Amino acid sequence: MLARSRPGSPEHPPAPAVPAATAAPHEQPRCAEWLRPRTRSLLRQMVDRVSQPGILSLAGGLPAPELFPAREYGAALAQVLAGDPRALQYGAPFAPLKGHVVGLLAERGIACAPDDVVLTSGAQQALSVAAGLLLEPGSTLALERLVYTGVQEAVARFQPRVLALDSDLETGLDVDELERLLERGERPAFVYVIPEGHNPLGVSLDERKRRRLAELACRHGVPLVEDDPYGMLVYEGAAAPTLKSMAPDWVLYVSTFSKVIAPALRLGYMAVPASLRQAAVLVKEAGDLESSALTQRAVAAYLEAGHLPSHLERLRSTYRTRRDAMLEAIAAHFPAGTRWTRPRAGMFVWVELPGDVDTVALLDTALRDEKLAFVPGRAFSVGGQGARASLRLSFANQPPEVIRDGVRRLARLIG
Amino acid sequence: MLARSRPGSPEHPPAPAVPAATAAPHEQPRCAEWLRPRTRSLLRQMVDRVSQPGILSLAGGLPAPELFPAREYGAALAQVLAGDPRALQYGAPFAPLKGHVVGLLAERGIACAPDDVVLTSGAQQALSVAAGLLLEPGSTLALERLVYTGVQEAVARFQPRVLALDSDLETGLDVDELERLLERGERPAFVYVIPEGHNPLGVSLDERKRRRLAELACRHGVPLVEDDPYGMLVYEGAAAPTLKSMAPDWVLYVSTFSKVIAPALRLGYMAVPASLRQAAVLVKEAGDLESSALTQRAVAAYLEAGHLPSHLERLRSTYRTRRDAMLEAIAAHFPAGTRWTRPRAGMFVWVELPGDVDTVALLDTALRDEKLAFVPGRAFSVGGQGARASLRLSFANQPPEVIRDGVRRLARLIG
Repeated sequence: MLARSRPGSPEHPPAPAVPAATAAPHEQPRCAEWLRPRTRSLLRQMVDRVSQPGILSLAGGLPAPELFPAREYGAALAQVLAGDPRALQYGAPFAPLKGHVVGLLAERGIACAPDDVVLTSGAQQALSVAAGLLLEPGSTLALERLVYTGVQEAVARFQPRVLALDSDLETGLDVDELERLLERGERPAFVYVIPEGHNPLGVSLDERKRRRLAELACRHGVPLVEDDPYGMLVYEGAAAPTLKSMAPDWVLYVSTFSKVIAPALRLGYMAVPASLRQAAVLVKEAGDLESSALTQRAVAAYLEAGHLPSHLERLRSTYRTRRDAMLEAIAAHFPAGTRWTRPRAGMFVWVELPGDVDTVALLDTALRDEKLAFVPGRAFSVGGQGARASLRLSFANQPPEVIRDGVRRLARLIG
Repeated sequence: MLARSRPGSPEHPPAPAVPAATAAPHEQPRCAEWLRPRTRSLLRQMVDRVSQPGILSLAGGLPAPELFPAREYGAALAQVLAGDPRALQYGAPFAPLKGHVVGLLAERGIACAPDDVVLTSGAQQALSVAAGLLLEPGSTLALERLVYTGVQEAVARFQPRVLALDSDLETGLDVDELERLLERGERPAFVYVIPEGHNPLGVSLDERKRRRLAELACRHGVPLVEDDPYGMLVYEGAAAPTLKSMAPDWVLYVSTFSKVIAPALRLGYMAVPASLRQAAVLVKEAGDLESSALTQRAVAAYLEAGHLPSHLERLRSTYRTRRDAMLEAIAAHFPAGTRWTRPRAGMFVWVELPGDVDTVALLDTALRDEKLAFVPGRAFSVGGQGARASLRLSFANQPPEVIRDGVRRLARLIG
């Protein structure tokens, strides 16, 4: 018997010889140390809590279910299942789908080849792959202080040193602050950015800031992870150019079909720089071998049938109306001194209440007295602190009259 | 701006101040160090290579596509899509599916509650979750020298110290060797075991060995990861009891619908000890948030309709016939001195050729001269060495006459 290491890994010294008699076994299996103090994020706990029937939820980042193209997607599934038994088999990434993704990327100003595209099981897996690609244990990375919890979960296992960046509610991430850090010699393994319809802040990153960010990435050799699930859900004018279009070699671009077709597809995609392609495939395959061949083929058939453009129009028109209803209701009912964002894209409005409201406590009251749900700002805080008087409201998942009613009732609770 | 760590993570010292002028950036993004020397496994490269049309492949672990229940599963999908828009939404794990999984586990002798079940995106994600749960960087783990490549990929990022165990071709993993290591004080983070229809060896673990293994796990406090994708594909008598049924507190049990319904479902499951439940959910969610709600509901509907038992009968009967055809053809055509396993379960026969054949070179010849594929033994080797004269043949994916023809032609090449 030989204790041998994997090829390419350093030789580890033999374990200290523990006499069997003194090695008191644990009474039950223990997880890795970093996991022991962790609990599910406030956000994921909430998803379970507020998905009870009878709750008026402005909480989750859930698309409008009545707009899911169930019929068209069902037809695509049926067509694919009837046509080719390989649809249920293991297989390499489906080339026609990659071709469609290349086309969608081109609409976001991104020129890339099918080989640059990695299909993933939703954007969350893409973030997990990006983290696995770029981080070593204890790596430094740069995140906004208030940011999508999924990326915090994707990086947690590396126990990273986090450079927490401020965000402006009108222009997005504080690029000056990042520049100062880089000038000081910081070299984060990556900077995470949600340029369009930020989750949870609802802000879109100012175009000049995008150009500076892209320039900083190239100049200092710091990769950007551009998370763009809402890039096709812009309600005013055109989306600003993507970071990937400005700095193709330094941006790992991430998007998904979850928000534009349906979350249950669990199908997302990345466009990665050539130097990371092969490693990205390794990390993806180690995670789940491959994403569903059936889903890949059905989504390709749905796109091939030309359904997406009109579906996107319907989504944008519906979400625009809902956003406007929410913004009007906030303006009409929330107390003086409240600040909120006016999203041009995505699903979320960020609200900062005046005074000393604790929105975690407010949520308990809202659920109990009004059967009403939102997400307290603290749920998104990188340090788990701060954002005490803030909350995130989603306008995507409810019709305008319900949004108005919900905002009015919530405002009444705030007093 | 404050550089702050995540709660629960140790404070990291500030990065050394690198004057910006001297910090020559890389010219392109670089992946984490452990990934740089790695390439895709021989097996995954092969899957692409042998899935060309016109290749007679005895290589991949692919189920028989003509047996996929495309009609029944398509009906289940259609029913679910027509019935409930939540089928396309984000959502908590689908309780009725968990209920069915508890029932399937009971048939393998495993008593557990729905809360012990974690639904995963195939068995590969379950292995990745098990690795994430139990390993720290540089942890020790115990694997057989010749073992499914997916587990090697799932653990690679931890750069583990591997205790490589021998396997007997008739009784499986060398439990004596493991016992000696444990007595010597080794405490691997887990021992990985494929008890039924081993991939690639085709052997099923002897029942007395299972009892000793379960006993060792409990006595020394060492978790077992029991990978059981073939537990419902046993062709002679009943399956032996699972390790999980013998040591419920120390076994992370993994299985999947890939081999019994279809791989493209990307739906697997784990049954984990209570002490690991919460952390398992965290690791799963960090990877891809959740597995497809649509697939979960469609598989539940398929199972609810009662299709599985008769489908399993059909699979077992077909695969038994194919296995027998392969074993007879090997006996008839392979040179004297060849050794091979006689699997009672799963999809694979392991063949050790006499003399000095190099099966990696043989594969090149077979592909070029005969358009014939198998997997060289080396593809499964933990150290990437050895198994020079061995190969793995799959009997699941081809009808008996093709298997006979393929084995005959392969034997002719060996000479």
